[in-house]
Amino acid sequence: MGINFERMMLDFSKIISITKTPGNGCTRFSYSPEDKQARQYLLSQMELLGLSIKVDAIGNIRAKFGKEIDKPSIMIGSHIDTVESGGKYDGLTGVLAALEIIRVLIEEETELRHPIELIIFAEEEGSNFGVTMLGSKVLTGRYNVEELKSIKNGEGISVYEKVQSFGLNIENVENDLLRKNEVMSMIELHIEQGAVLETQSKSIGIVQAIAGMNTYKINLEGESNHAGTTPMGLRSDPMVGAANIISFIQQAAKEMALPSTVATVGKISCQPNVPNIIPKKVEFYIDIRDVESNGIEIFSKKLKEKVKNVSEEHSLKNTIELIGASNTVKLSPRIIEQIEEIAKEQNYNYMKLNSGAVHDSAMLNNLTEVGMIFIPSLGGKSHCPEEFTSEKDIHAGCNLLLNVVRALATKKNEIETF
Amino acid sequence: MGINFERMMLDFSKIISITKTPGNGCTRFSYSPEDKQARQYLLSQMELLGLSIKVDAIGNIRAKFGKEIDKPSIMIGSHIDTVESGGKYDGLTGVLAALEIIRVLIEEETELRHPIELIIFAEEEGSNFGVTMLGSKVLTGRYNVEELKSIKNGEGISVYEKVQSFGLNIENVENDLLRKNEVMSMIELHIEQGAVLETQSKSIGIVQAIAGMNTYKINLEGESNHAGTTPMGLRSDPMVGAANIISFIQQAAKEMALPSTVATVGKISCQPNVPNIIPKKVEFYIDIRDVESNGIEIFSKKLKEKVKNVSEEHSLKNTIELIGASNTVKLSPRIIEQIEEIAKEQNYNYMKLNSGAVHDSAMLNNLTEVGMIFIPSLGGKSHCPEEFTSEKDIHAGCNLLLNVVRALATKKNEIETF
Repeated sequence: MGINFERMMLDFSKIISITKTPGNGCTRFSYSPEDKQARQYLLSQMELLGLSIKVDAIGNIRAKFGKEIDKPSIMIGSHIDTVESGGKYDGLTGVLAALEIIRVLIEEETELRHPIELIIFAEEEGSNFGVTMLGSKVLTGRYNVEELKSIKNGEGISVYEKVQSFGLNIENVENDLLRKNEVMSMIELHIEQGAVLETQSKSIGIVQAIAGMNTYKINLEGESNHAGTTPMGLRSDPMVGAANIISFIQQAAKEMALPSTVATVGKISCQPNVPNIIPKKVEFYIDIRDVESNGIEIFSKKLKEKVKNVSEEHSLKNTIELIGASNTVKLSPRIIEQIEEIAKEQNYNYMKLNSGAVHDSAMLNNLTEVGMIFIPSLGGKSHCPEEFTSEKDIHAGCNLLLNVVRALATKKNEIETF
Repeated sequence: MGINFERMMLDFSKIISITKTPGNGCTRFSYSPEDKQARQYLLSQMELLGLSIKVDAIGNIRAKFGKEIDKPSIMIGSHIDTVESGGKYDGLTGVLAALEIIRVLIEEETELRHPIELIIFAEEEGSNFGVTMLGSKVLTGRYNVEELKSIKNGEGISVYEKVQSFGLNIENVENDLLRKNEVMSMIELHIEQGAVLETQSKSIGIVQAIAGMNTYKINLEGESNHAGTTPMGLRSDPMVGAANIISFIQQAAKEMALPSTVATVGKISCQPNVPNIIPKKVEFYIDIRDVESNGIEIFSKKLKEKVKNVSEEHSLKNTIELIGASNTVKLSPRIIEQIEEIAKEQNYNYMKLNSGAVHDSAMLNNLTEVGMIFIPSLGGKSHCPEEFTSEKDIHAGCNLLLNVVRALATKKNEIETF
C-alpha cells in the first residue's frame, strides 16, 4: 500500500494558502498568526488520527502513534515555517509526508514494534531571530532559558517573550529536552534546495552527510581617494583587493580544495560607495562548506593566506572574523543502508549525495540515528516563490519514506539496541 | 609685491566657519543658507574694492576691476560650494586667491591693459542635483531654461525652482551666456585632489590637460541559489564574474592601457545580498579617465571584451550602459608657457601634470584660453574633512597666480588677438 497522494495534496493546498504574502510566495513565520492557523489545521488532523500530541516549550509539535507508546520511536517530520516570500515545498513536504505516512500505517493496521512519531520543528528558518533550527537546537539542549531571554529580534523582543506570548510555557525547556533513548531513528524527507538531483536526472537522493560550515566576514581598508586624480600606482584600493580574493575563492574551491568544498561570497558592501571615489572600505562574507571537515580547514587556511598576500600587495588593512561555524554531520550508515536497500529493491531512481544545507535532523545526530531523503528542486531554487518540486517526485519520496518507516517499525532485528 | 597672506587667511577662516556640519567638515551647498552667508561676506569685500559686480541667472558671481572694463578680461576664480562634509580647500582656495590678487593689483596701482575678473561658479560639486559644474555649464550654454526645469533633486525640486527661490532670475539664462571675446583667458588655482605633487615633492603643478571620462554601469545576472547546496561546477555566480572583471580592470589599467589611463570601481551592489545565497545580480560602476582620448577608447574596448568573455564563462547575462562621458580638454599651450616661464624665473618648485578631475574652467575651453595651477593635497585626500594643503603651498600658488595675471594684464603682445 502506498500513500494517498490526493489526500496529501489537499493538506498541501490547505497549508500553502496560509501566507502573509499572497501572490508573492509563502510567508509563514513561526509564532505568527499564519503559523497558528497552520498548526490548528495540522493538530486537528492529528486529533482525528488519535495521536498522542505534545507541544513542547519552544513550540515543536510531537505526535505519536503506536501500541507501546513509550518505546523508542521512529521519528519523521520537518518544519512548516518559511523565510519571507519563500517557497511551498521547503519543510512542509516533509511534515505532510509524515502525517500521510501515519494515516496509511493506521489504515493498513500494520503491526508496529515501535511507535511512529511525527515532529514539526519550530523556527527552522531563523526568520524571527536570525537563529536557524531554533526548535531542534532547544530540543537538544543547545540553549537554556536564560540564553533564550538574550536572543532578540530586530524589535528587541526576545525568544522568551515571543514564545510566551504565543501561548507556550517556555520555562519548561529543561523538562522537554530530548532524551537519549527516546527516539530510535529520525528520518527527514526534504527538498534538495540544490540542483544535483536534477542535473543527474534522479528522483531520490539518499543523504550521506550534512556539510559543516565556516562563515567569515572580511574587512579590507585602504585609502579613499578621487578616482580621477590618483594614478594607478599610488592606489590602495580595497575593492581591487576584494575582487582578487573573491576571484581566488572561486578558483580555489574548484581547483585547490576537496571536490566536495563549496565557497560563496553572497554579501558585499562598500564605503562610501560612490562611482568616482576609490573606496575606503569593502566588507564581504565568505560561506565555506564541506562534508569533509578537513576541506573547511584546508580552504580556511588558503583563504587567510590569500587575504594576507592581497593586503600586502595593495597596502590594505584587513580583519577576518569567523562569524559562524557548524560541524560536518555524518548520517547513520545503518539508516542509509536501509533506505538504499528499499530504493534498490523497488527500483527507485536514486543516488547518494551530501547536503550543503543544514537541517533540523542533523541536530539530533548525537541522540539517535539520523537519515535524510532528498527530492529534487527545479533549477536548484529554494527560499523563493519559484521553488518547485514535481508531484511525481514528491509522490516517490513519500512512498520511499513510508516503506523505510514500515520496514524499520516492523523489523525484528537488533536495531533497537544500537 | 606679493599677496597679503594674513589678509587672505582672515577671509579663509571667515568662510570655513560657515558650515552646516560644524565639527564634521565643510558643508556649504549652493543655494543654501550657508551659501547665502558666504556670498554676503564675499560680495561685501568686492564692494569695498569697488568692483563691478554681476550675479548671473544661475548664481555665478562675476566681479570686474580695470580701466577699460569692456575689454576681454583675465578671469580668475573657482567655486565656494562643497560636498557633504567636504574639505576646506577645494574651490575656496581659488576664489580667495582671486579676491586677494585683485586687492594687490589695486593697491600696487598696476597699469592694466585688461580688466581682471573674479568669478565664483555656482554648484560646482553637484551636491544639489547630481549635475557637477552646473554654474559653468549654464554659463557656457550647455543647458537651457526648459532643461533646468527637468533636472530635479531627491525631493523633486527642480534647478529652476531652487534657483528662483534663492532670489535669482533664472529666466535670464540666455542673456547671461558667456560670449566668445568676453574673456581673454581663464586661470583657475585649485588643490590637486590627488597625490602626484606630494609624491614628487612639488609645490606647484601646471596643468596640461584635463582627463576625459567614461562611466559605465555594468549589470551581471546569474542564477541565485543556496550557497551550501550548489556545487561549484553548477554555479552561475555574478559576484565571481564581477570579481574577475574588477581584477582585470585594475590590471589592464596598469599594464595594458596608456600610462595615463586610470580606472576605478567605486560602487557595487548585490542582490539579494545574503551571505548564504549565491547572488542573482551584481551591479557595479567603472570610472575610466585619461588625458589621451584614445586611452579611454582602448580601455573601453578591452572592458567590453572582458565582460563578454566572463559572462560566457560563467553563463551570466550582462548589460553595459554608458552613463556619463566627457571629453579630454587640452589646456592652452600659451597659458601653460606663460605660467612655466614665471615659475622657472622665480624658482618655484613646479612640475607639469594632468588633472584627473574635471573643473569649471574646462567648460570655458572653447570660448577662451584656459590654464590651471594646482597646489598639493596632503595624501591626495579631498572631499573629506581631512583635506589639507599647507599654508606654504597656498602662499606659493597664490603668488604664482598673481605674477601670471600681472604679466598677462600688462603684456603688450599679441595675446589679445588669439
